Amino acid sequence: VQLDPRQLSHLLHVWPVARLASVGPAGQPHLVPVVFVALDGAIYSPIDGKPKRGGMLQRMRNVAREESVSLLLDEYDDDWDLLWWVRIDAKADVVTHAEPAPHSFAQIVDALHAKYRQYDSVDVFKGQPTLLRLRPTRHNAWSVQQVAWESL
Amino acid sequence: VQLDPRQLSHLLHVWPVARLASVGPAGQPHLVPVVFVALDGAIYSPIDGKPKRGGMLQRMRNVAREESVSLLLDEYDDDWDLLWWVRIDAKADVVTHAEPAPHSFAQIVDALHAKYRQYDSVDVFKGQPTLLRLRPTRHNAWSVQQVAWESL
Repeated sequence: VQLDPRQLSHLLHVWPVARLASVGPAGQPHLVPVVFVALDGAIYSPIDGKPKRGGMLQRMRNVAREESVSLLLDEYDDDWDLLWWVRIDAKADVVTHAEPAPHSFAQIVDALHAKYRQYDSVDVFKGQPTLLRLRPTRHNAWSVQQVAWESL
Repeated sequence: VQLDPRQLSHLLHVWPVARLASVGPAGQPHLVPVVFVALDGAIYSPIDGKPKRGGMLQRMRNVAREESVSLLLDEYDDDWDLLWWVRIDAKADVVTHAEPAPHSFAQIVDALHAKYRQYDSVDVFKGQPTLLRLRPTRHNAWSVQQVAWESL
C-alpha cells in the first residue's frame, strides 16, 4: 500500500534507522544500516558519521556505478501482529565536493543534529563532508494490522 | 572482521530478524525483513509464513534470475557505542516442489518452530511449502565496541 505524503514524511522524521541496499559491479547486493534525514522529499545519509570500515567505500563505489538503491524502514517485534515495513526505492548519488543541492551541507548537518542527539558528541563528518543523496522514486508499505503511522 | 564459526552460528540461532536484499532484472535492489533458521551452515527463510503481498513474489523472481543475495543482521540502539552488524553474502535459490536438500521441509519446519514460538499459532507455510535456501559465501562483521556475541 501507499502511505500518504504526510505519513511518509513523519515516518522518515522519527524513525532512526534504515537498511540501505545498493548493488555491486557483479550484481551482488550490499547492505548496511544507515542513519538519515529527509528534507523536502530528498533523503540524506551521512558517510563517516560513525566509525565504519569496509561497508563505507563499497556503498559509495556501488552508487557511483548503479544509482538504484532501496531503503527499508521496519520494525521487528515478537508480536508478529505488530510487524510493518516501508520500502523506499530511490536513485542515489554521492555528494562530497560540491554542495548537495537543493540543500547545503549546513542544512543537512542541522537536520541531523535535530534528529539525532548523539551528534552532540559525535562529528557528523570526519574530514571531507560526504553523504549519500537519495531521490525516492516510489515506496511500498506493508503491515499485518493497520499502523498508526502518525503516532510512531 | 570475521566471526568464528561458533559465534556466527550462535548469532543465527538467537537473532530473530534479518533484512534480505536481492536484485531485480533492471539492477534494482529489493529489500524485505525475513525470519530464518540456520542448519549446518545453510540458511532457510520461509515464504508465506506471515501474510505478505508484493515483496514475496518479487523476492522469488529476483532469486530465480540472480542468485546473489545479502542478509544483514544488526542491532540499532540509541547508544551508538552498542551498534553492530553482520552481513552475510550468499547464493540463494527458491525451493518449493522438491525437498530442500540437504534438509527436509520437516526438519526446517521443526527448526522454525524451535526458534519462533510464534509458529505455535501461525502456519509456517500457507499452501505449497516454499522457502529461500541461502548458501553463505562470506560474511563481514562490524561493531563500535567489542560485542559479546555468545551472550546475545
